[in-house]
Amino acid sequence: MGAGERFGVLVGVAYDGTAFNGWAPQRDGRTVCDALTGAITKLDPKASLPRGVSRTDAGVHAEGQLAAFDASLTIPARGWVLALNQHMPDDACVRWACAVPEGFNPRFSAKGKRYRYRVLLDRIRDPLLRDRAWRLGWDIDQDKLAREAQAVVGTHDFAAFRSSHDARNDTVRTVTRCAVEPEAGGRIVGIVIEGNAFLYNMVRIVAGTLMDVARGHLAEGTVARALASRVRGEAGITAPAHGLTLEHVFLELPAGAGEPWPPG
Amino acid sequence: MGAGERFGVLVGVAYDGTAFNGWAPQRDGRTVCDALTGAITKLDPKASLPRGVSRTDAGVHAEGQLAAFDASLTIPARGWVLALNQHMPDDACVRWACAVPEGFNPRFSAKGKRYRYRVLLDRIRDPLLRDRAWRLGWDIDQDKLAREAQAVVGTHDFAAFRSSHDARNDTVRTVTRCAVEPEAGGRIVGIVIEGNAFLYNMVRIVAGTLMDVARGHLAEGTVARALASRVRGEAGITAPAHGLTLEHVFLELPAGAGEPWPPG
Repeated sequence: MGAGERFGVLVGVAYDGTAFNGWAPQRDGRTVCDALTGAITKLDPKASLPRGVSRTDAGVHAEGQLAAFDASLTIPARGWVLALNQHMPDDACVRWACAVPEGFNPRFSAKGKRYRYRVLLDRIRDPLLRDRAWRLGWDIDQDKLAREAQAVVGTHDFAAFRSSHDARNDTVRTVTRCAVEPEAGGRIVGIVIEGNAFLYNMVRIVAGTLMDVARGHLAEGTVARALASRVRGEAGITAPAHGLTLEHVFLELPAGAGEPWPPG
Repeated sequence: MGAGERFGVLVGVAYDGTAFNGWAPQRDGRTVCDALTGAITKLDPKASLPRGVSRTDAGVHAEGQLAAFDASLTIPARGWVLALNQHMPDDACVRWACAVPEGFNPRFSAKGKRYRYRVLLDRIRDPLLRDRAWRLGWDIDQDKLAREAQAVVGTHDFAAFRSSHDARNDTVRTVTRCAVEPEAGGRIVGIVIEGNAFLYNMVRIVAGTLMDVARGHLAEGTVARALASRVRGEAGITAPAHGLTLEHVFLELPAGAGEPWPPG
């Protein structure tokens, strides 16, 4: 192995987003990318910065964030997982690792993502769920919610479902699934959204709009009308960050990738 | 109403036990009882101290703790819930309230309790569950676990399943249910235990023993042998506090109690 040879490493990262200022390095506050960079640097000061797939916002959680970096050391996947976690904080963790070609950027190989937005239906707050679900103290119409969620599915221009801070020109995205899945005996409504890519705040605006329809603040058919109008004001509110979890990134491992550890 | 007249109030209390030094006031650390006392005193400086049902340990959570106090003010149940929660910290909350006779002590009216002990089966830690479930990185035998759990059910002398700090003479208790309920697609094993009363650390020692059998550290039949021997050393380890939640206290409301708010 020549001097300066480098070895790509892909890791799955999970975090409780509550005390992070999101994934991406910021001027202020601790970020997950900084925490991972710190752990990598302890083991390999010459490693590159990690390249993440999704720039999750402050308060947003992840079970399946992905990041890749280039190391100057050859360490087996299992070694990376165990050694990095020695240096990760309590609220973030490397869930698995595998070898990938140097320079691999998972952002460009991601085929899609799955998010879950959790809504707690309760008149009173619940301290055990305070950082995990958006509490809504309203009666909701579950049938309306399920019907409206179907309107999100498909290839649409989602211009009405993005933050005004998103300046991208191409606002057409494909949502392959938008399903309502109850949890905790029905106390929690989970809105599961899968798609090829998402605009800034898109999942939170979809979740806010669906719940606005479900509680009768907006009329049924709002999603279809907002999609057609492309006007942000036609959609509902932006649901708060702490209800959102990035569950999974769909990725085809590149040619030459190693076996992930732990397997499965 | 005469001067000095007092009005009993019963409240349901939920908390994330992570940052509390348990329920009962201690020399050191913040406790849930102190937090509730602080909220009550803000509204009614002449109220009594709250009388809780269960002295949960540091790190143990509750969805259904109960406490009663005597107020010098008449406030409807709904008013107590909303006003107390204005003064409760983020990690504890009054879930409901109802009027009860002055001096009512729910400890003496409790018919039983339901606890849930959560075990996360995973080789790698999960930051989103770090304060909610005991992580066990071992393969377990689910059939063995279910069989061994059945041995806990019944009226037994649980002397082997209590902390050495428990000096009570009567160690016979009745467990009416000990069931294994998977959560989160099987990643979490929930051990649900209902009984009339519990010794100190009893649920955590039962959970630790069941998992010791399930992972093959102790032989099947350990529960029955430990019950017969009455020797603490015959049972398994004390599972850590953060996996435990006091879910429900079974209570018959006393004659003269008001309607709980919120209803249901």
